Amino acid sequence: MTMTRTEHDAFGPVDIPADRYWGAQTQRALAVFDIGTERFSECLIHAFGLHKMSAAVANLQCGQLEADMAHAIVAAAAEVRSGAFDAHFPLTIWQTGSGTQTNMNANEVIANRANERLGEPLGTRRPVHPNDHVNRSQSSNDSFPTVMHLGAVMEVEDRLLPALAALRDSLHARATVFADILKLARTHLMDAVPTTLGRSFEGFAAQVGHGIERLEAAMPRLLLLPQGGTAAGTGLNAPAGFAEAFCEEASRLTGLPFRPNPCKVEGMAAHDALLELSGVLNVIAVSFIKIANDLRWMSSGPHCGIGELKMPDDGLTSSIMPGKRNPTILEAMVQAGMQVAGNHVTVTMAGASGSFELNVAKPVLIHNVLQSIRVLADTARTVAERVIPGLEPDRERLARQLDSPLLAATALNPHIGYDQAARIVSYAKAQGITARNAAIALKIMSGDEYDVLVNLERMAHVD
Amino acid sequence: MTMTRTEHDAFGPVDIPADRYWGAQTQRALAVFDIGTERFSECLIHAFGLHKMSAAVANLQCGQLEADMAHAIVAAAAEVRSGAFDAHFPLTIWQTGSGTQTNMNANEVIANRANERLGEPLGTRRPVHPNDHVNRSQSSNDSFPTVMHLGAVMEVEDRLLPALAALRDSLHARATVFADILKLARTHLMDAVPTTLGRSFEGFAAQVGHGIERLEAAMPRLLLLPQGGTAAGTGLNAPAGFAEAFCEEASRLTGLPFRPNPCKVEGMAAHDALLELSGVLNVIAVSFIKIANDLRWMSSGPHCGIGELKMPDDGLTSSIMPGKRNPTILEAMVQAGMQVAGNHVTVTMAGASGSFELNVAKPVLIHNVLQSIRVLADTARTVAERVIPGLEPDRERLARQLDSPLLAATALNPHIGYDQAARIVSYAKAQGITARNAAIALKIMSGDEYDVLVNLERMAHVD
Amino acid sequence: MTMTRTEHDAFGPVDIPADRYWGAQTQRALAVFDIGTERFSECLIHAFGLHKMSAAVANLQCGQLEADMAHAIVAAAAEVRSGAFDAHFPLTIWQTGSGTQTNMNANEVIANRANERLGEPLGTRRPVHPNDHVNRSQSSNDSFPTVMHLGAVMEVEDRLLPALAALRDSLHARATVFADILKLARTHLMDAVPTTLGRSFEGFAAQVGHGIERLEAAMPRLLLLPQGGTAAGTGLNAPAGFAEAFCEEASRLTGLPFRPNPCKVEGMAAHDALLELSGVLNVIAVSFIKIANDLRWMSSGPHCGIGELKMPDDGLTSSIMPGKRNPTILEAMVQAGMQVAGNHVTVTMAGASGSFELNVAKPVLIHNVLQSIRVLADTARTVAERVIPGLEPDRERLARQLDSPLLAATALNPHIGYDQAARIVSYAKAQGITARNAAIALKIMSGDEYDVLVNLERMAHVD
Amino acid sequence: MTMTRTEHDAFGPVDIPADRYWGAQTQRALAVFDIGTERFSECLIHAFGLHKMSAAVANLQCGQLEADMAHAIVAAAAEVRSGAFDAHFPLTIWQTGSGTQTNMNANEVIANRANERLGEPLGTRRPVHPNDHVNRSQSSNDSFPTVMHLGAVMEVEDRLLPALAALRDSLHARATVFADILKLARTHLMDAVPTTLGRSFEGFAAQVGHGIERLEAAMPRLLLLPQGGTAAGTGLNAPAGFAEAFCEEASRLTGLPFRPNPCKVEGMAAHDALLELSGVLNVIAVSFIKIANDLRWMSSGPHCGIGELKMPDDGLTSSIMPGKRNPTILEAMVQAGMQVAGNHVTVTMAGASGSFELNVAKPVLIHNVLQSIRVLADTARTVAERVIPGLEPDRERLARQLDSPLLAATALNPHIGYDQAARIVSYAKAQGITARNAAIALKIMSGDEYDVLVNLERMAHVD
Repeated sequence: MTMTRTEHDAFGPVDIPADRYWGAQTQRALAVFDIGTERFSECLIHAFGLHKMSAAVANLQCGQLEADMAHAIVAAAAEVRSGAFDAHFPLTIWQTGSGTQTNMNANEVIANRANERLGEPLGTRRPVHPNDHVNRSQSSNDSFPTVMHLGAVMEVEDRLLPALAALRDSLHARATVFADILKLARTHLMDAVPTTLGRSFEGFAAQVGHGIERLEAAMPRLLLLPQGGTAAGTGLNAPAGFAEAFCEEASRLTGLPFRPNPCKVEGMAAHDALLELSGVLNVIAVSFIKIANDLRWMSSGPHCGIGELKMPDDGLTSSIMPGKRNPTILEAMVQAGMQVAGNHVTVTMAGASGSFELNVAKPVLIHNVLQSIRVLADTARTVAERVIPGLEPDRERLARQLDSPLLAATALNPHIGYDQAARIVSYAKAQGITARNAAIALKIMSGDEYDVLVNLERMAHVD
Repeated sequence: MTMTRTEHDAFGPVDIPADRYWGAQTQRALAVFDIGTERFSECLIHAFGLHKMSAAVANLQCGQLEADMAHAIVAAAAEVRSGAFDAHFPLTIWQTGSGTQTNMNANEVIANRANERLGEPLGTRRPVHPNDHVNRSQSSNDSFPTVMHLGAVMEVEDRLLPALAALRDSLHARATVFADILKLARTHLMDAVPTTLGRSFEGFAAQVGHGIERLEAAMPRLLLLPQGGTAAGTGLNAPAGFAEAFCEEASRLTGLPFRPNPCKVEGMAAHDALLELSGVLNVIAVSFIKIANDLRWMSSGPHCGIGELKMPDDGLTSSIMPGKRNPTILEAMVQAGMQVAGNHVTVTMAGASGSFELNVAKPVLIHNVLQSIRVLADTARTVAERVIPGLEPDRERLARQLDSPLLAATALNPHIGYDQAARIVSYAKAQGITARNAAIALKIMSGDEYDVLVNLERMAHVD
Repeated sequence: MTMTRTEHDAFGPVDIPADRYWGAQTQRALAVFDIGTERFSECLIHAFGLHKMSAAVANLQCGQLEADMAHAIVAAAAEVRSGAFDAHFPLTIWQTGSGTQTNMNANEVIANRANERLGEPLGTRRPVHPNDHVNRSQSSNDSFPTVMHLGAVMEVEDRLLPALAALRDSLHARATVFADILKLARTHLMDAVPTTLGRSFEGFAAQVGHGIERLEAAMPRLLLLPQGGTAAGTGLNAPAGFAEAFCEEASRLTGLPFRPNPCKVEGMAAHDALLELSGVLNVIAVSFIKIANDLRWMSSGPHCGIGELKMPDDGLTSSIMPGKRNPTILEAMVQAGMQVAGNHVTVTMAGASGSFELNVAKPVLIHNVLQSIRVLADTARTVAERVIPGLEPDRERLARQLDSPLLAATALNPHIGYDQAARIVSYAKAQGITARNAAIALKIMSGDEYDVLVNLERMAHVD
Repeated sequence: MTMTRTEHDAFGPVDIPADRYWGAQTQRALAVFDIGTERFSECLIHAFGLHKMSAAVANLQCGQLEADMAHAIVAAAAEVRSGAFDAHFPLTIWQTGSGTQTNMNANEVIANRANERLGEPLGTRRPVHPNDHVNRSQSSNDSFPTVMHLGAVMEVEDRLLPALAALRDSLHARATVFADILKLARTHLMDAVPTTLGRSFEGFAAQVGHGIERLEAAMPRLLLLPQGGTAAGTGLNAPAGFAEAFCEEASRLTGLPFRPNPCKVEGMAAHDALLELSGVLNVIAVSFIKIANDLRWMSSGPHCGIGELKMPDDGLTSSIMPGKRNPTILEAMVQAGMQVAGNHVTVTMAGASGSFELNVAKPVLIHNVLQSIRVLADTARTVAERVIPGLEPDRERLARQLDSPLLAATALNPHIGYDQAARIVSYAKAQGITARNAAIALKIMSGDEYDVLVNLERMAHVD
């Protein structure tokens, strides 16, 4: 039997588990929305803490809250920011499209906690009232999208960018080590020309590096916050200067240069900036899929595949083939990429669905963006730590693959022309001989001339 | 400080929390895969219980397990099926693409529990060994995809189909009540011709009803199980008759007609059947978005929108606009649809990624399919219970909307021709008069003739 | 200088190129919609011919058209059906979302051509009037979606199903030829166990065969036509029996069992049936990507890749690497699959966008569906004709790949247990010896015992 | 009967229509790829002209071509750039994934045309040889992706950015005109608070303006060209300085600052930069859908919808409802957005499919990107010209909508608290009276006090 207390909101009494800090609107929402199991990422809850801290300070500065009350709210909200109240946000993401229920959840938890700090039991709604004080000068209409931006930006800054930098650096480090190792380049999956293993890793590192640039290029629009728009972007009930004071405090607390969106309604009715971010995450996901697949194939076999790289052992194996080693983490990386690509479509549809002054697909939109950031970041970190540094070339295998009889023809083009080079290849194939011997047999050049023109290291342009 | 025990697998010792039933491979995987927070739906864990029960019975019938051991496995697996061991499946979905780690997790939990039932402490790996006995005649290659099908089919049968039937029935019930209520039809969002409110709800009910048919049409291919394919679809180490015995037991336990996939490798290397299901879920999602949006718009306003329907009160309101009532559940319904549409793209990419004898995007694929089923089912049930039955027409508003001066022109076409009808409309607009008066003024017909031809009830075809 | 004639519609005069059969509404639309270059597939124009034939016959039967006029319309529409007037449909798909402009285009072309057949010059609008006679008992609201279904069903029947059957048969034929050829199975891209080349091709054939079943499973809902719903699904201005007579004639002309949709508004306000079809096309696309990628990898190298299959020569080569042969057609196949998957998302969003009594994303929706059908069909036919029959195994390479020292361990599991088998593999790897020698060295079994247990043919289950 | 000439390539003779400038490899490809009808956008063909001009100049500067030959190639390529040879590029996009066939098509057309200018008949392959001279220092591997970037960047610069600027400006102009017009804001589609019509249009203009910023933010990575990488990114057969000279000439010809990609293989094996662009196009598409839908709804009815805006007449109407005016162009705008969103998924999958040194989904990828640019640009231009300037407010309707009895409650919050405000609303609803009268009846304030607090203009924050 659960102990309960009774809280009242504007619509009557509601029973709430006695040890929970949420209030009546949250409890009502729990009954209404018995859908799914997906909860907001903790980072969104923490961003709500940051948000309500900043709002309380802005209210104080704008003369909307007394200092005592503002400080009580800041202290309670700081606890939410720290994660201490994660268990008091029970709603799933399947709720009103404005995120109102989770905004009210935050208001209620902070009000209850602030009142408790001021010596009142839970449920009093005074001196701190969830709407009149915690939500002061705000609406879900502007608070929730502001929290969406805060959460996304902080996750990008704190989680994704460092992980991408680590991945890029690990790839670059391997590229340096592998700089002079010749390998066969493949185009259309077919044997092409000599290149270096280092060049492949430089390509991977460049992809990840560009991913970082892309995130930074999207940042200016993500740093714009619609706070201050209140109901429908009108600014109703928010004092002059509120948006500026809010952004200043949020920036101070995070070290990130948040600014008021000059067009509030744009930040509430549309979520183009988050969709732009999702588009960048989608590019990063695709980079990951490319890199992971290349590494999987390069280490495939090991005997009957490409077999150029040896994977570090992760201690995991097959349930039926004892000792079989699989590229497990890289498979997770590919799957993470697929999830992000699918999430991006959800974000696209959610972003397209706004009507008039409000987009009401906010919960599903931000949930997918935050999931994408998280799985990309965790995957990048795991791959950077556990896979890349341990990759070792199979030098014997790499060398053997360059020993292809037809590899050389391309190098002859500038000297004898494409058609003659093609003739050599054709003849060599038909006769089952090397290109060198075909060139001699066709009297196109001598063996010595051939050896001058065809040089694997020079073909691979290793300077 | 957590108490631990030490387990050994083929690769050495591993420390495991003492009260956890998983084993060494699971514990190793936990360290390797520190990615994300997404866990498999509980239904997949329960399907693993069902799976290992069926496998043990098949092994018994094929002479691969002694009766004592088989019964111990069945009893332990039945507990997994019942949900008693959900907390012992700690891995996220971000793991090897074959689902091997979760298959091993199931093997280990069941072996430990079976041994415990036989009087042995956790971690002995005897008499019941996770690979040799629980996984007997199986590979992750065939077990995991079989569990994917089992889980998906059961969720469709137990959760989605009943919820869709409830939604269809609730819509149909409203359609019956609303059958004779005239309303304005809108095409291109523009005022068109009279129709009935019942017809709109019949359309919704038909969409949901077709969704049920679509699920049933996909079922034949979902009921095919690749069990018996073992490693790479070869059937290696599985005795003759295993696949058949497995399907028979799974069918007995579930009441569903599972059959062996005659082409095992198709069911392991590709997941077309689950992608087909996801395609159907995507259609249902789209039906939901259409229905939810129509209902939202029909109840919009209430004063300054369409305002034809009145929503039941859900007790939730705005954080700044007191007493404002929003179509909260329907917004969740739209968002659920968007999630499913995005998940479908993930499933598409995952389905396309198989190589040779194995698709290795299984975890992300099934996770998305099961999430889609769940949110559609929960949404359907919630809407059927909380929204549809309480919808009430605003009869006064509906009647007023039919009082449009130009509505009638279409009905005149067959009698006076399209060009004359257009002339009436044109003249009426220009003069700001009704179509009736325009027809008279243009001497196209008398008022009496007009009244015979133009009759809202007949135009709406209410028989 | 283009010669023009002047036509009048209900809104005034319009100049039209003298040799074009379209009329005033089409000409106006050309000026309004100067967007893109995408035109409807010719099959949709032909389906409009079929549609207007069927409508004229239904009107005749229902007493809505005189026989002379009906016959003139049927004759003109038959010419549209035959493709003779394709050049008279100049609009792009970027038009009104109901397809009204293309419906009017069809009405105008057929009216002009019918009048011409009756001895009148173009542009008279009599005796056959585009709206009053060609469009009689119809609206764009029901005609366009009916044409969408007609076009899609006929393309599936005439183009896609035969191509898929050819592809399935070509794969099956190769499977038969390759039935006894041993090859290495790969899971996670890693060397696994012996299987047969035939089994791989059986898997491909099964995927394509299921694709055919999926199309057939979607057919019942595609055969339902909303014709007869006219404006907004009300049936206004359509006589009793029109829908039935229309479907009967369309069925007679095509040999396909079209039926009236019992819920007209469902077929006009939603396009779930076409989205369902698109979902099936998406599965087929994914099957194609899987098959094409496997074949590309199996023929990769040829020296430094998997190299198990030899591609037939297509006479195409690299612009810089003379004589290099690439899997060109299979790359087109993969790309076709990607296009279809993207189109499917467009169809999903279009399908989700209906409001009230009409979906107004019809043109983009059907354009994408028809493009998907076409590229899948053409690709299937091309691959069936030009790639599959010419695939030849590299038997020497296949045999060499089975010569792997560790391949055997899996077969030992049932006899010595998973942990012992793992010990053999571990020891063999560490010592760089074969599994057989490791088994002997570890005194687990004798060489003779080993040879009895490990047998590639039996492992591959070639009976 | 078509007259033909016979050309030879390295693999033998081929018959070619006598008046066509393409050569043997193109003709062979036509036979191989009988798939679909989709051709590359003309802008891609023109970009090939630009590309081969730049390559010839770079070859001249690097001493790889004699001046006469370089000039002949430049002159012929300039004709391709101008569009004069569009009809000589007959291949569909369904070809090899490297675009080799279209690169060879360009080489062949330019060689034939250059030889013709030098007095030789078509088909001589001398003095200008398609591979040895037109393709000198190049491979399809680097040329085709370079052309992809050239084409995409030029389309963005020449077509999309001006169209977006026009759309933004047209929206901003209306916003200025509408700045002081009060209207009802709607959130969750429900009546909310007063705002201004100008604010809605400022929101639209901000979305489009951000779209322009997003394109510019993606440009740095699109301006990087992989030219000079030749086969597999090695630079084989390209002289030192070629990439730099190429970019310099391409920049000179276009006025755009193209630069060599420092990591060639990144630009050939991956197409992240084009996927990033597609992600931005996807955002713009979503902005378009939002704007178009809002405008459609704002002008819906006109009698029985929102009806706040009056659309300009486009002269088009319904086929059954004479004189009915629909938001035709805006429906095209929505559909264009859906196409772009679907194309984006194709681009995502294509972008993710690269293997080793080459992505071989280039044709489908660039086709979708260019289609997206085109339809967005044409739609933006059409809407800017034909829709936005003609939008007129229905002032009477707008004013009437603000006359809502409950609109005021939000403004009371800061003065009397949320719970009291909610009480007023609740009481007003129950009694069917205005909020003002409820406030008085509940003795919360006097009518005079109420009138001071509740002021529509101030609530809408019109300064």
